[in-house]
Amino acid sequence: MTDEAPGSAEDRLIARYFRPLAKHPGAFGFSDDAAAITPPQGHDLVLKTDGLIAGVHFMLDDPADGVARKALRVNLSDLAAKGARPLGFLLSIALPKGFDEAWLAEFARGLGDDADAYGCPLLGGDTDATPGPISISISAFGTLPTGTMVRRSGATAGERVFVTGTIGDAALGLRVRQDAGVAKAWGLDAAMSGHLVARYRLPQPRMALAETVRTLASAAMDVSDGLAGDLAKLCRASGVSADIDVARVPLSPAAARALAADPVLIDPILTGGEDYEIVGAVPPDSIYDFRAAATRRGVAVTDIGRIVEGDAPPRFLDAAGQPLAFGRPAYSHF
Amino acid sequence: MTDEAPGSAEDRLIARYFRPLAKHPGAFGFSDDAAAITPPQGHDLVLKTDGLIAGVHFMLDDPADGVARKALRVNLSDLAAKGARPLGFLLSIALPKGFDEAWLAEFARGLGDDADAYGCPLLGGDTDATPGPISISISAFGTLPTGTMVRRSGATAGERVFVTGTIGDAALGLRVRQDAGVAKAWGLDAAMSGHLVARYRLPQPRMALAETVRTLASAAMDVSDGLAGDLAKLCRASGVSADIDVARVPLSPAAARALAADPVLIDPILTGGEDYEIVGAVPPDSIYDFRAAATRRGVAVTDIGRIVEGDAPPRFLDAAGQPLAFGRPAYSHF
Repeated sequence: MTDEAPGSAEDRLIARYFRPLAKHPGAFGFSDDAAAITPPQGHDLVLKTDGLIAGVHFMLDDPADGVARKALRVNLSDLAAKGARPLGFLLSIALPKGFDEAWLAEFARGLGDDADAYGCPLLGGDTDATPGPISISISAFGTLPTGTMVRRSGATAGERVFVTGTIGDAALGLRVRQDAGVAKAWGLDAAMSGHLVARYRLPQPRMALAETVRTLASAAMDVSDGLAGDLAKLCRASGVSADIDVARVPLSPAAARALAADPVLIDPILTGGEDYEIVGAVPPDSIYDFRAAATRRGVAVTDIGRIVEGDAPPRFLDAAGQPLAFGRPAYSHF
Repeated sequence: MTDEAPGSAEDRLIARYFRPLAKHPGAFGFSDDAAAITPPQGHDLVLKTDGLIAGVHFMLDDPADGVARKALRVNLSDLAAKGARPLGFLLSIALPKGFDEAWLAEFARGLGDDADAYGCPLLGGDTDATPGPISISISAFGTLPTGTMVRRSGATAGERVFVTGTIGDAALGLRVRQDAGVAKAWGLDAAMSGHLVARYRLPQPRMALAETVRTLASAAMDVSDGLAGDLAKLCRASGVSADIDVARVPLSPAAARALAADPVLIDPILTGGEDYEIVGAVPPDSIYDFRAAATRRGVAVTDIGRIVEGDAPPRFLDAAGQPLAFGRPAYSHF
């Protein structure tokens, strides 16, 4: 992403919308071919890439600034779950010919606001024309002391399973967005259905908990493909299973009301994905410190069950102690 | 890019085609949510992202392994021009539903071969479905001693302008590919037209020259958007101009024959792009060492002119000493 060749429409777009975001000295004001960063000594770099495609991950009538924020935040969510602190990111964006420049202006505004808010500056990028839909790919980088990335694989039997925030809002929010009638059927007022849609549109990555996760969790990952499927991945990587008390899975008031109106919604709540919360395991003797640290940092954490021995998928136990069966354990694009 | 959820088609694809490429320990066998690398102490990380889109940057009947190689190499070319040594890369790939899995198998094979050949392992990635064409975005990372990235901005009047390899092959190769008749009109035999098309399809990033550029060049960049436009960018960043002797711009035998048959081809040769050579400036007292080092490393370098004072675009001077005028100074996507 460079700002030269002032005669080129591509470079005018970059100069107008992205150069103001080049606040990191290693971005060289987008006046060079690559960025350069000096990683802090004694630290590892954590690398993550994730993309959004119009018509798949967002709709063209979603606010463009929110699309940008979501594109960055889904990557930040991974960094937080791995215990890393944001360092910066690269953006690759493909735009159809004749795209709406006002869309791009709003996109860049949202991106810049979030880059500032999360201390994660834009380091460089690439702008292309595509015959397809708007496509955004972000590669985000974080830092943490060498060798301390929180893996999926560290959980051991006897540890507690925690999750941040609330689960299922985004999956229900997507349904509300697709069919406003369901909000009425679920008995939701405007504020409640608005809450669910906002949770779908704009993840809240739990950066404030990254350091706590890094120092106290034995395993963690972000919940992007559904709590049931993602916890299953964590358990598989750790060579363990888990028993989860479904009644303890934290729900927003809106999700709780919807679930009361239609109990089968427990399936999308636990498997629908896009929660961008953190699920993980904490050793019993660290639970107190973990809770206290989370409280200090203003992030809700809930103990939802325990890690057990075995290689079966985690059991999500209902009030009668019976494991739920899910229609589709995790999101897949194909 | 993770290999779990064995029931998911997405994860089966990743396990089958990309997990064998996870050779760096920090890729964790794609069994985690992010990669972790320990940057060498006293070194900077150089970051670059560049993408390829089907129908724009490659055609679906191009060999898929070559598409993968090109996607990686266009990024490596930037790292080489900045003086960096490859460390690894992230891949983001979007595939239409119902894509040809044999294409993906060949793509992954080419990507793995080049990752090995260039010592640039796949660290992680993201796979998505798209309603649009196949889209590939690669973010590549290189290392170099702290503060030594070769900038566009270091050239000063009196220095010599060098370029590696030969210029214009890819631009002519694209024309041959689009219309085989032009090869005949230009008097090219099959080997010559094959050479041009191969140069379009498969860049040869000048990694072998990276260390030489880093230690001896005062400014450099890779030639991706055309020699004329890219040298203009380097001059603008350096606050200088340049006088280039067109007769000294290095041409392959195929390009030289085409140009002899049709002199107007000097325009696409100098502005067509996709050369993936390195252009830069070397102080007069380093020219001997620079040439000697390039020869040792087996990379042809040619002195094509000199950096001069001024803020005008570089002049490309013909045999009569008259500056050429170009139809379009540099490639732009919009």
